[in-house]
Amino acid sequence: MTYFDALETRSADQREAEQLAQLRAVIGASVHDLSSLEDLQKLPVLRKSDLTVAQAQQPPFGNIATQNITHLFQSPGPINEPGGAGPDWWRFGRFLHATGIGSADVVQNTFSYHFTPAGKMFESAALAVGARVFAAGTGQTAQQVQAASAFGVTTYAGTPDFLGIILTKADELNIDLSGITKAAVSGGPLFPAVRQGYADRGITCLQCYATADVGLIAYETIEMDGMILDEGIIVEIVVPGTGLPVSDGEIGEVLVTSLNPDYPLVRFATGDMSSYLSGQAACGRTNRRISGWKGRADQAAKVKGMFIRPEQVARLLMRHPEISKARAQIGHDGSNDTLVVKLETNGSDTAAYKAAIADEFKLKAEVIIVNEGSLPRDGVVIEDQRDPS
Amino acid sequence: MTYFDALETRSADQREAEQLAQLRAVIGASVHDLSSLEDLQKLPVLRKSDLTVAQAQQPPFGNIATQNITHLFQSPGPINEPGGAGPDWWRFGRFLHATGIGSADVVQNTFSYHFTPAGKMFESAALAVGARVFAAGTGQTAQQVQAASAFGVTTYAGTPDFLGIILTKADELNIDLSGITKAAVSGGPLFPAVRQGYADRGITCLQCYATADVGLIAYETIEMDGMILDEGIIVEIVVPGTGLPVSDGEIGEVLVTSLNPDYPLVRFATGDMSSYLSGQAACGRTNRRISGWKGRADQAAKVKGMFIRPEQVARLLMRHPEISKARAQIGHDGSNDTLVVKLETNGSDTAAYKAAIADEFKLKAEVIIVNEGSLPRDGVVIEDQRDPS
Repeated sequence: MTYFDALETRSADQREAEQLAQLRAVIGASVHDLSSLEDLQKLPVLRKSDLTVAQAQQPPFGNIATQNITHLFQSPGPINEPGGAGPDWWRFGRFLHATGIGSADVVQNTFSYHFTPAGKMFESAALAVGARVFAAGTGQTAQQVQAASAFGVTTYAGTPDFLGIILTKADELNIDLSGITKAAVSGGPLFPAVRQGYADRGITCLQCYATADVGLIAYETIEMDGMILDEGIIVEIVVPGTGLPVSDGEIGEVLVTSLNPDYPLVRFATGDMSSYLSGQAACGRTNRRISGWKGRADQAAKVKGMFIRPEQVARLLMRHPEISKARAQIGHDGSNDTLVVKLETNGSDTAAYKAAIADEFKLKAEVIIVNEGSLPRDGVVIEDQRDPS
Repeated sequence: MTYFDALETRSADQREAEQLAQLRAVIGASVHDLSSLEDLQKLPVLRKSDLTVAQAQQPPFGNIATQNITHLFQSPGPINEPGGAGPDWWRFGRFLHATGIGSADVVQNTFSYHFTPAGKMFESAALAVGARVFAAGTGQTAQQVQAASAFGVTTYAGTPDFLGIILTKADELNIDLSGITKAAVSGGPLFPAVRQGYADRGITCLQCYATADVGLIAYETIEMDGMILDEGIIVEIVVPGTGLPVSDGEIGEVLVTSLNPDYPLVRFATGDMSSYLSGQAACGRTNRRISGWKGRADQAAKVKGMFIRPEQVARLLMRHPEISKARAQIGHDGSNDTLVVKLETNGSDTAAYKAAIADEFKLKAEVIIVNEGSLPRDGVVIEDQRDPS
């Protein structure tokens, strides 16, 4: 079967209509009316820091209306994450199916099952596509090799690098692991040279983008033409700190709205940056695609003892709608921190802009007005150019 | 509800008839006819070492006819263990129910989920009784304390000792874990002083006996009057090395026959020793009870460079049916190993016994004939009295 289910080939209109209905169901009637998915912009962004505070006040899950929760996890922060008993609750089955994993496969699951939901996410997914699972966890490399051989493992699941460590150990032990032909990875950057190294051994390595809070967000297919959005979530890409959409193709912060009624997070700021790709995936799946991980969005930096945050840059733009884009650059002149704010604008009232910055940032800044479209479209609004050493 | 299910209060006759039917179904028509559970004695004992060899020849599960296997595990040996997707596949739900764990509980599961099935065993069990599970795994003591507090944990699952480590750390961190009132432990000896220490903190700590191969074997209830056999297995207690039942109440090796059609192990030698208790459990459960763990049955010892094993002692008794019991005692006279074999018998042909021992053990021994009933009923057939230092 080419697709995991019929959702993957819905028309854009059908997907929008069905997701809107799901969204209305999960957030209930007490919030703003939503006439389209764009109306999500009326709702506040939910930051991890908000979640941590709310969870501490009202453990374990703050004021989120959970239901049918059977599993509890905790990530550093701490941040608590629930899990449910429904099949493939985190939806990674869609990713494993796209990598070609099925009932003939044996998956060596090297994600941890302890504290983090990662192990369980990939285990549920393997069961959803009919594969067998060896819950290997992290470490114990020599035993991983022995077990992979004994179990006839065909598929690796784990972080991008650990497969290489296992294969090197297998070479040392002179144990043949050529039965491994597929790798489903996440949880860290997959560098092209690493992927090529696996390909040279006959292993197709595909990655997905996911978080412990919302599960699968986007996934690669064997065509490797970007990451296709999962069908169970809505993704927005916004200017960091604003909640407002970036221009087409521009890098911004990923907000995810989960349509899972058991744990409906709305406009959850992942802290990661990505961008939309234009056009359609070659495989025929019709959902939008993103470009993958493009850095962290939490660009807070300390200047002369004061923090500046993307939200402050966003408020500067709200005060002066004629400014379309801003970038704060932090440097050091040898004795003091320096702050330059570059503004894309047709305006010219530098004095007013300086005053607004002084008011928002509680800091004096040099202001440089630049041409429209001249700032990089990389999602960076606060750029720390100081030498970290 | 007092009992986990109606199986726990079956009459002995009904249990025997139903288990015999299950046994016939799982082992098929190709083996000996079985007219009662006692006929199990016609079938060979399956030792862990047999399983390791068979698995190496025919990975992953040797010649055992498995079905519906979804999970693969591996213990040191290596020995491979399967798991299935059916609810509570290892049957620990019965144990958790007997400890009073139910839908109001949050279980901190500190068994590992990696390589070993232990974590999954207790997770499936918690779900079977409607409890929530925090998959904590081993280690990370300070984080275990923080998470236990955040999640409102009521129940500890893990080895007997680790709970004490968590509680001590909670005291250090001044975090209140008095919400923990139940502990379900396994995987090591539970010493009375440890249990009392938990009781002093208001925690009822109960233990079960289980293995990675067959799952739950026996469990304590809040009456703490021995360990009641699980309903999904048949237990025999035999003289180590023989496969023949011990006398009533005597300590011997535990053989387990699993009635799980997904992985039907027959007369599996756990390597552990225990004994039957007489009478009935106070709680009204009707199954037989055992006394708990009474040491290891694998009593092989090296004497003058030669191994002697319980099976050799057993063959000595088969040669001379007038010997009812034997105990080989190994010592050291300052320069050489010594071997004394004590025999309970009405016979007196010491010369013939010495010859038989020399033939079976390839060793000369001193033979001492003792009165019937004078050897300890402790399951020991080879006693190594040498100073191990």
